[in-house]
Amino acid sequence: MSANNLEDGRKRVVIESVQPEVDAGRFAVKRTIGEQVVVEADAFTDGHDAVVCMLRHRKLGTTDWHNTAMAALGNDRWRASFNVTEQGRYEYTVVAWIDHFLSWQRELVRRVQVEDIQIALLTGAELIEHAAQRASGEDAKQLKTWAAQLRDNTDLATRRTLGLDETVLRVMVRHTDLSLATQYPRLLHVVVDRERARFSAWYELFPRSCGSDGQRHGTFDDCIARLPYIAEMGFDVLYLPPIHPIGRIKRKGPNNTLVAGENDPGSPWAIGAAEGGHKSILPALGSQEDFKRLVSAAQQHGMELAMDIAFQCAPDHPYVAEHPEWFRSRPDGSVQYAENPPKKYEDIYPFNFDSAHWQELWQELKSIFDFWVSQGVKVFRVDNPHTKPFGLWEWIISSVKQDHPDVLFLAEAFTRPRVTHRLAKVGFTQSYNYFPWRNTKPQLTEYLIELTKGEGREYFRPNLWPNTPDILTEYLQFGGRPAFMTRLVLAATMGASYGIYGPSFELADNAPREHGSEEYLHSEKYQLRAWNLNQDDSLKDFIARINRIRRENPALQQDWNLQFHTINNHELISYSKTSPDLSDVILVVVNLDPHHNQSGWIELDLPALGIDPQRPYQVHDMLSDARYLWHGPRNFVELNPAESPAHIFRLRRQVRTEHDFDYYF
Amino acid sequence: MSANNLEDGRKRVVIESVQPEVDAGRFAVKRTIGEQVVVEADAFTDGHDAVVCMLRHRKLGTTDWHNTAMAALGNDRWRASFNVTEQGRYEYTVVAWIDHFLSWQRELVRRVQVEDIQIALLTGAELIEHAAQRASGEDAKQLKTWAAQLRDNTDLATRRTLGLDETVLRVMVRHTDLSLATQYPRLLHVVVDRERARFSAWYELFPRSCGSDGQRHGTFDDCIARLPYIAEMGFDVLYLPPIHPIGRIKRKGPNNTLVAGENDPGSPWAIGAAEGGHKSILPALGSQEDFKRLVSAAQQHGMELAMDIAFQCAPDHPYVAEHPEWFRSRPDGSVQYAENPPKKYEDIYPFNFDSAHWQELWQELKSIFDFWVSQGVKVFRVDNPHTKPFGLWEWIISSVKQDHPDVLFLAEAFTRPRVTHRLAKVGFTQSYNYFPWRNTKPQLTEYLIELTKGEGREYFRPNLWPNTPDILTEYLQFGGRPAFMTRLVLAATMGASYGIYGPSFELADNAPREHGSEEYLHSEKYQLRAWNLNQDDSLKDFIARINRIRRENPALQQDWNLQFHTINNHELISYSKTSPDLSDVILVVVNLDPHHNQSGWIELDLPALGIDPQRPYQVHDMLSDARYLWHGPRNFVELNPAESPAHIFRLRRQVRTEHDFDYYF
Repeated sequence: MSANNLEDGRKRVVIESVQPEVDAGRFAVKRTIGEQVVVEADAFTDGHDAVVCMLRHRKLGTTDWHNTAMAALGNDRWRASFNVTEQGRYEYTVVAWIDHFLSWQRELVRRVQVEDIQIALLTGAELIEHAAQRASGEDAKQLKTWAAQLRDNTDLATRRTLGLDETVLRVMVRHTDLSLATQYPRLLHVVVDRERARFSAWYELFPRSCGSDGQRHGTFDDCIARLPYIAEMGFDVLYLPPIHPIGRIKRKGPNNTLVAGENDPGSPWAIGAAEGGHKSILPALGSQEDFKRLVSAAQQHGMELAMDIAFQCAPDHPYVAEHPEWFRSRPDGSVQYAENPPKKYEDIYPFNFDSAHWQELWQELKSIFDFWVSQGVKVFRVDNPHTKPFGLWEWIISSVKQDHPDVLFLAEAFTRPRVTHRLAKVGFTQSYNYFPWRNTKPQLTEYLIELTKGEGREYFRPNLWPNTPDILTEYLQFGGRPAFMTRLVLAATMGASYGIYGPSFELADNAPREHGSEEYLHSEKYQLRAWNLNQDDSLKDFIARINRIRRENPALQQDWNLQFHTINNHELISYSKTSPDLSDVILVVVNLDPHHNQSGWIELDLPALGIDPQRPYQVHDMLSDARYLWHGPRNFVELNPAESPAHIFRLRRQVRTEHDFDYYF
Repeated sequence: MSANNLEDGRKRVVIESVQPEVDAGRFAVKRTIGEQVVVEADAFTDGHDAVVCMLRHRKLGTTDWHNTAMAALGNDRWRASFNVTEQGRYEYTVVAWIDHFLSWQRELVRRVQVEDIQIALLTGAELIEHAAQRASGEDAKQLKTWAAQLRDNTDLATRRTLGLDETVLRVMVRHTDLSLATQYPRLLHVVVDRERARFSAWYELFPRSCGSDGQRHGTFDDCIARLPYIAEMGFDVLYLPPIHPIGRIKRKGPNNTLVAGENDPGSPWAIGAAEGGHKSILPALGSQEDFKRLVSAAQQHGMELAMDIAFQCAPDHPYVAEHPEWFRSRPDGSVQYAENPPKKYEDIYPFNFDSAHWQELWQELKSIFDFWVSQGVKVFRVDNPHTKPFGLWEWIISSVKQDHPDVLFLAEAFTRPRVTHRLAKVGFTQSYNYFPWRNTKPQLTEYLIELTKGEGREYFRPNLWPNTPDILTEYLQFGGRPAFMTRLVLAATMGASYGIYGPSFELADNAPREHGSEEYLHSEKYQLRAWNLNQDDSLKDFIARINRIRRENPALQQDWNLQFHTINNHELISYSKTSPDLSDVILVVVNLDPHHNQSGWIELDLPALGIDPQRPYQVHDMLSDARYLWHGPRNFVELNPAESPAHIFRLRRQVRTEHDFDYYF
């Protein structure tokens, strides 16, 4: 092997271990508008030359790089950051090189002998002359002047001072020879979403139950009438289960029974009937026009509508007749229904993604998103994405976002960790996760640390749901109303994004279909339900207060800032969230025991919270409005679940004014 | 973006996180002949189909892959391994696919209803018929028969049993359709060296001091006469500092003084004079023929010779006159000497790797290795590789090893961690490291865990040296003879590869040039030294015993198996090494205090060491030959540094024979 075939061997700087980087750059990291991307890299060279390291970034599709000097952290590690200000994709990488002038300055400052300094000044003059050749205009002139001054016969100390001058360095840096710079071999990507991708409060509602009495099928107009109620609770995403025509063949009856009565509405996830499929609306709900009115009425209430996308068909979905090639056929000629032997789901036909006609199928599925985007929908909750190819999602999401970067996708994949993470990597904006089943203090602590500090946080944005129409956890079944409050506080304060399925949730509906099941009794998935929204013990005011606290406190609008605190009671969990400038410091204490009073001593790292340990500080419980004056890191808390299972404190530092008048801010 | 331009969307399996993998496959991992490469990967698909995962490997340059089925570890993780049996490079990757027949079997076994089983058997028959089309000969015939049997009218239970048959699955696997298999996007490399890359005992010697009296300049023949002495100590690599002509201009005198006397030999690292450069031999040492005799005499003593390669020139090196373009010139026209302002090293000219003529320079430097390989040298210790470009080493090492895979390279880079690691990544077989300065129990524990369990172990093979001609540590200076014994035991039993600089080491030479310096007084780097090899307190027998223990115990011939044990005294450190089959279990206890008796209780994880906690076991100190009978995990040890600062126990399990006669093996 001859050295003649090699890349230029004078590119002597090495760049390694750039972070963040997902799967060697195969996938993008995620941010929202206004956030920072903090980039670190190892960069070094052989020998003792000075290395300069630079972060480059640009919006994808633009040509010019923005360059940011990286700061040396020691041990050959460098760091810089950039802000993302627009939706869409950015790319970034790292460039580093040897700066011979900087190397020269660093040596000059250590030279002692007159003879050495004299020779060094001539070397410096040469370096500046070379830079002058690369420069033009004023800079070229200035550099030539400096070079001449370094060479002239004036006082050595003066010339040495000029050689070490910061201004000279700054001009030299402008004309650095980058022909031998090393660029990190990969361009890494950031997908930037609007703020709602990071900070959102979801409310799931079956529109058909919005009829007043549970007998009449609710309509979009009934939904519109319900909007003030939901908006007053403070939600910003209203998510509806599928609104399409529902299959009649093998339709399920109440409580998932196999035979439906004549008036049973069926499951909205059994999509498609004579009236149409994924681009149609169930006539009982209203028309496309009614739907568009709902979309804009929600907007007027500060909410946006999220649609459910479930890629599966009822036997009478038009696709089944029109595109038999998209389904698997059984040896008896019938279409293969969904099954998990010995269980059968004969009301549902899955698509066959191994079909030779997969490309047409993918195009059609993507067109469903395109259609609803054209109807004003910008948020999609995707049903069971883990039973469709990862490649399909990567293609659909990137294609849709290319034209509509404001579209958000929530993955409903309650499955194994690697699968869940892969879906997030291929593009889902937010992800359901294991939060519903993390109930004890060690479980919550370990899991939330994984979500907020683990490597996955770069691409996996959790959305925390205490319940869904499929998930009525044991904790909620047995914990009563306090359990609902506890889980709500945890979801809404641990997670910047969370959601509830209502009115089931605020009415603390907790009867399971049978013992040991997480299914609801009389589940809305299979029948209409009447809800008494004015029930005395409704949690609606409590929810409204929590959502207001979330909106008023930027600390609660992000995930990565979560910190747990020691508290000497296994039933009490405590954590804080802070804004980067520590102007907003939130401390939460939750009683995980829905049945008993619990108390304990909490220990805080006060300096980390911006509190002077020598001075008292006020903790203001934004739930009860109570205020306490605390001193030092160790304080007592007690929580009675029958009253409120949590404190959501805002910490207020004591400030002594020049008039010796204390106040808290 | 149209789905028509995508890769086949039916390739639904995903492969991620393949381990081992260094820097996204940019660099190879390292093994020695006979070792295993254990490969893990995440592999999974959407939905519930059965995934099959396979490890592929081949010797680089061969065409056929060896395929090994990977075992599912749970949580979508898979593992398999392959053995490397030849020197050179191997490549490996992972392939995975959906096995529709296996999926079908897994469902069939769970089917209950007769009708479902009947339909399923027809589906299975279809799958087998498709496989029959891909097969030929006996297999095709057999598959067709089975398909027909699944379809016929015989007893359902019989047909179901056939469908679930292991043999059917095995034949089906042979004819799997791999057209939609996923291959991991990267081919990963393993560099396989001979055993000495992993297990070696080095002895460094200045040949010029092998003259009997310290006055006469030693020769290669004197070295040959010294070989039995070194071989008796049990070393297998004899490493010589540079043997080339030594520069006369600016030659250094004894103790690194700036002016050499007429008879001062100078530093061997100031390479090159009128007699020649890096391919020549200092006439006072002998001729090329003498050198070749030394190489083969060493071989006859079971040792191989390691040469020092130091890429730098004395001012009178022929390169300086012949290739001024390979050096930096100063503004006064002189050649730039080595410097670290305000220090100057005027006896040394570094190469200028920024030279426009870098390619010719690289070729010449590589030819130095080629030359000495042609003279029978297969081991090189490279001086300060971190002051030459990483790319140079990557190219030289891979080029040399392409033709001579048995050549080994030891990097002498005492510098920052990232730089040291990069040199190992680009190809150095072994690496000097921070061992000389890790003296306390926490330091040793933390550092050896990093070396033996950290990610770097895949490419960074440490060679542990208690001393070198440049490094006389404070611990050795103040600890006396027991300190030398302690450091020897640590180096030789913690590391599969280690080395000493002798006879300085075995004679416990510990006088520094001045207080606070790690340089030796009257360093052999600048003068001849006379050594009394028969000195009463020489450690030569102790060293010989330790090297014999290393040779006799496979557990001590590898690094990754190091485990530390708890011992309740900060001055005592304890660790074990075991062979994979637990037939060889070595337990080491070392007193780190060279001045005082230390004792403590050691706690062992007996099952991990293959010892039945219910039975006594023998510990045989191979240093003192004492044997103790221990019971249970907790035992007392006491070490007097004046006698022996260490135990190197071999653990012998008690075996009860059928005649109720106990013995230990």
